[in-house]
Amino acid sequence: TALGTRKSHCHRCFFEYETERMIVVKSKVVGSVFRLIQFLILFYVIGYVCVVQKSYQETDSVISSVTTKVKGTGFTNTSDLGARVWDVADYNIPPQGESSFFVLTNMIVTPNQTQSTCPELPNQSTICMSDSDCLEGSNDVRIQTGLCMNYSETVKTCQVLSWCPLEIDINLPEHALLVAAEDFTVLIKNSVTYPKFNFHKRNILPDVNSSYLKQCEFNRKTDPDCPIFRLKDMVSEAEEDFQTMAIRGGVLGIMIDWNCDLDWPEHYCGPKYSFRRLDNKIPENNVAPGYNFRFAKYYKTTDGRETRTLIKAYGIRFDVIVFGTAGKFNMVPTIVNVGAALTFLSLVSSVKWSHLQNTHYL
Amino acid sequence: TALGTRKSHCHRCFFEYETERMIVVKSKVVGSVFRLIQFLILFYVIGYVCVVQKSYQETDSVISSVTTKVKGTGFTNTSDLGARVWDVADYNIPPQGESSFFVLTNMIVTPNQTQSTCPELPNQSTICMSDSDCLEGSNDVRIQTGLCMNYSETVKTCQVLSWCPLEIDINLPEHALLVAAEDFTVLIKNSVTYPKFNFHKRNILPDVNSSYLKQCEFNRKTDPDCPIFRLKDMVSEAEEDFQTMAIRGGVLGIMIDWNCDLDWPEHYCGPKYSFRRLDNKIPENNVAPGYNFRFAKYYKTTDGRETRTLIKAYGIRFDVIVFGTAGKFNMVPTIVNVGAALTFLSLVSSVKWSHLQNTHYL
Amino acid sequence: TALGTRKSHCHRCFFEYETERMIVVKSKVVGSVFRLIQFLILFYVIGYVCVVQKSYQETDSVISSVTTKVKGTGFTNTSDLGARVWDVADYNIPPQGESSFFVLTNMIVTPNQTQSTCPELPNQSTICMSDSDCLEGSNDVRIQTGLCMNYSETVKTCQVLSWCPLEIDINLPEHALLVAAEDFTVLIKNSVTYPKFNFHKRNILPDVNSSYLKQCEFNRKTDPDCPIFRLKDMVSEAEEDFQTMAIRGGVLGIMIDWNCDLDWPEHYCGPKYSFRRLDNKIPENNVAPGYNFRFAKYYKTTDGRETRTLIKAYGIRFDVIVFGTAGKFNMVPTIVNVGAALTFLSLVSSVKWSHLQNTHYL
Repeated sequence: TALGTRKSHCHRCFFEYETERMIVVKSKVVGSVFRLIQFLILFYVIGYVCVVQKSYQETDSVISSVTTKVKGTGFTNTSDLGARVWDVADYNIPPQGESSFFVLTNMIVTPNQTQSTCPELPNQSTICMSDSDCLEGSNDVRIQTGLCMNYSETVKTCQVLSWCPLEIDINLPEHALLVAAEDFTVLIKNSVTYPKFNFHKRNILPDVNSSYLKQCEFNRKTDPDCPIFRLKDMVSEAEEDFQTMAIRGGVLGIMIDWNCDLDWPEHYCGPKYSFRRLDNKIPENNVAPGYNFRFAKYYKTTDGRETRTLIKAYGIRFDVIVFGTAGKFNMVPTIVNVGAALTFLSLVSSVKWSHLQNTHYL
Repeated sequence: TALGTRKSHCHRCFFEYETERMIVVKSKVVGSVFRLIQFLILFYVIGYVCVVQKSYQETDSVISSVTTKVKGTGFTNTSDLGARVWDVADYNIPPQGESSFFVLTNMIVTPNQTQSTCPELPNQSTICMSDSDCLEGSNDVRIQTGLCMNYSETVKTCQVLSWCPLEIDINLPEHALLVAAEDFTVLIKNSVTYPKFNFHKRNILPDVNSSYLKQCEFNRKTDPDCPIFRLKDMVSEAEEDFQTMAIRGGVLGIMIDWNCDLDWPEHYCGPKYSFRRLDNKIPENNVAPGYNFRFAKYYKTTDGRETRTLIKAYGIRFDVIVFGTAGKFNMVPTIVNVGAALTFLSLVSSVKWSHLQNTHYL
Repeated sequence: TALGTRKSHCHRCFFEYETERMIVVKSKVVGSVFRLIQFLILFYVIGYVCVVQKSYQETDSVISSVTTKVKGTGFTNTSDLGARVWDVADYNIPPQGESSFFVLTNMIVTPNQTQSTCPELPNQSTICMSDSDCLEGSNDVRIQTGLCMNYSETVKTCQVLSWCPLEIDINLPEHALLVAAEDFTVLIKNSVTYPKFNFHKRNILPDVNSSYLKQCEFNRKTDPDCPIFRLKDMVSEAEEDFQTMAIRGGVLGIMIDWNCDLDWPEHYCGPKYSFRRLDNKIPENNVAPGYNFRFAKYYKTTDGRETRTLIKAYGIRFDVIVFGTAGKFNMVPTIVNVGAALTFLSLVSSVKWSHLQNTHYL
């Protein structure tokens, strides 16, 4: 019947297969050039794509959580503060950071400030002869009352409403106050996750034990897996001098590299530490060099008035920066990369050489 | 010998090369359609893949470190606190953030709190007639003693054990307290790294000098490279009104876009700033609108009792969000993309047209 | 003319098109194997590349901003502190985190410390018989004066310059102090952006209303969209016991997964919450287990001397970790992936089968 015919036609159609007529070319020159190109493409696929770039892998970015704990005690003896011991509750501000911690190394302390009026620090714009030189109202920095006051016996300056006495921050100590800070140590605990591969790991590796951890100290050569770092060593690795950096403060990056090839056993995936100064120390092209911030401790006098101790804190902020990409074998990028390479492989035979063949050998 | 024959056979085999027999079709219609398709594919490869998507590049995600420094002084005169000057140590809480900073703009202050008992604030569930109306023990918010006390001359409420007197936070000031906050400025220092390309840069560009940095202010048109931002300008760019936002607080994102094409000179890779309000201001679909948090300053009285000043701080939290991807030429993605395009190019000639050829021209 | 001839030649040349001579092979075996391979490749392209891996999409990483607000009141009654109520300003330190918050659950309080001298806590290295056993100067932890002092009636230890009295942190309370912390709740507001797709969303979904938000609580089954979490529930979901974890503290990750397929309506793109303990609780391979940090409240006595209350705070730090990748259809990855698959498809017909054809059918 007609239906049967159509069916059998269709059936035949499905199993029909078109192929091209091949001609075997026998030429040493053409053949060897062709083999060379094929070899180069194969070499590229195996050597570069697979070994160097690992393009057969699917990748995921690291997710990280960091806790830090600083240890150490410092001692200072200044005219302002007298003999004083500094422990972690004093120099680590705020007491817990998320992935960064700050160690105070130098400071300008202005004790017993109260809300009152006092004469401005003398400079070009604040020195006055009479009240008419002082504008009432606020400028960018202070609230002026409009009066001219004796700052010292010889100099008069405009009066301001402020926390008085004012902070004198021009005489930063030439040497860092908390010299001992370089010998403080910090324990960094870092937990990472690659959610796509359901991979979790910590920077405290499974093969180290508690007794080692209690007394070890990071050293690139002898103790590369110890998570306890001496501040001075970290600054040295960043090619900076701790005591110089401590005067005006700075920002030091603790980079933890978790780049991993998860086709290998988990054992091979570990943290690699490196250190780099993150703030700019070139003076020509900078503003507010170093790193400092102001904070205050508030007190109340017996009559209920609020006083505060203002501290301009200079120090080193350590930023723990965790980064990395994990790769694992996956069909899709493999197919894509091998497919692309094979395209070139097949094009070499079909496109480029066809003209040559047509002209000379057929 | 047999070995020699096999060898020469193998030798021949290696240099043998199969190619296809080509037929040159001379047809204006077929030829022009074919050329058009070839042209479209080439156009796609060059125009879209290379110019628009830059698919020939390997990419890396940005790693960033941010420090911020707010500058400015405010003045408030309220019945609670009297005339008071606010400097950065007062309104910037905590004194140093990692990549965000908070500027206090409004507040509810509850001074002289002590651990004691006092009557609850009157509302539907706390008003009582006698002790039997008050359950002893803790509920979600307070610890009740089970007694019923005079809150005022007319109202009785359950007694609670708490920091007393209780905070009355229903009467939020209608205007932001620290009006001057809109003229505060912030210096943002941002250091970025693309680890894969070993590329480091700061948002303070190498071609600006210190004297410019000391007095400049960011302006999208006139000073796009200045890292000092006026708070009001940032809020305006996010299409919000500073004074309105200051009443209940909010979260403002300072987005720094470091998308870079590292095939170009380093000079072209710079930060692009944009600003966006991140919290929800639509009242229908919100809970705890704005942004606020509570903190306390602790004092000790002369007899050793602890008192505190509780502050419910409303203000704007500025989140510095750094993002970006850098791209650089790399063989693998180039091969992959060009290979894929060439596949289409070659398929056009072999697969689609073959039927046409078979039918009409052979 | 010669020019005309060349032109017409070129013209012809442009419309010439080379194609291959096709041979239709009629063999059930060859045809069916061939069709099977074609089918497998098609199946791979459609099933795996498109449906599972979504390789036709361009991707972008999430950018996120988080604010948290803890609610709850606790009550403790210890010999040191007496009856005491704890509210959010007391137990949430620092008062506002960026994307993490800390809830104090246990502590060692050392009140009334002053800068002075006192005998060390007795242990193997600090017990002394006479001054000659004590070295003057600082060791890793303390600054020694070189004197030997009575610690108690029976034991003598070296004298140190420090905040005295020293903290005795060996007797950590066996039960968490702030038992009520497990019933505290936290409101997490999370705002995410996919900058490449200009996509913004919040974890408070547009279809929930304020009245629901005011009283809801997250539950994976009944309230998966409520952004208010009970601390105990989060710890339980991480398969930990809150009261056990509260004794020594720990770090809990609140993972918010924003993986989205933006080819679907925005409605389908929402947060998925999961919880995981991030610190190591295995004692064999650990140092400083749990999570704690020290902070101090500073006071001034009436005669101007500074005293402080040192608090070693144990508690749970909750890290809100936002991650995700959004994908959207894009021409480039589609072309690349389909191209690669087609390469295989065409190679099946040209490379592998050609030998077979040559031998048997030609």
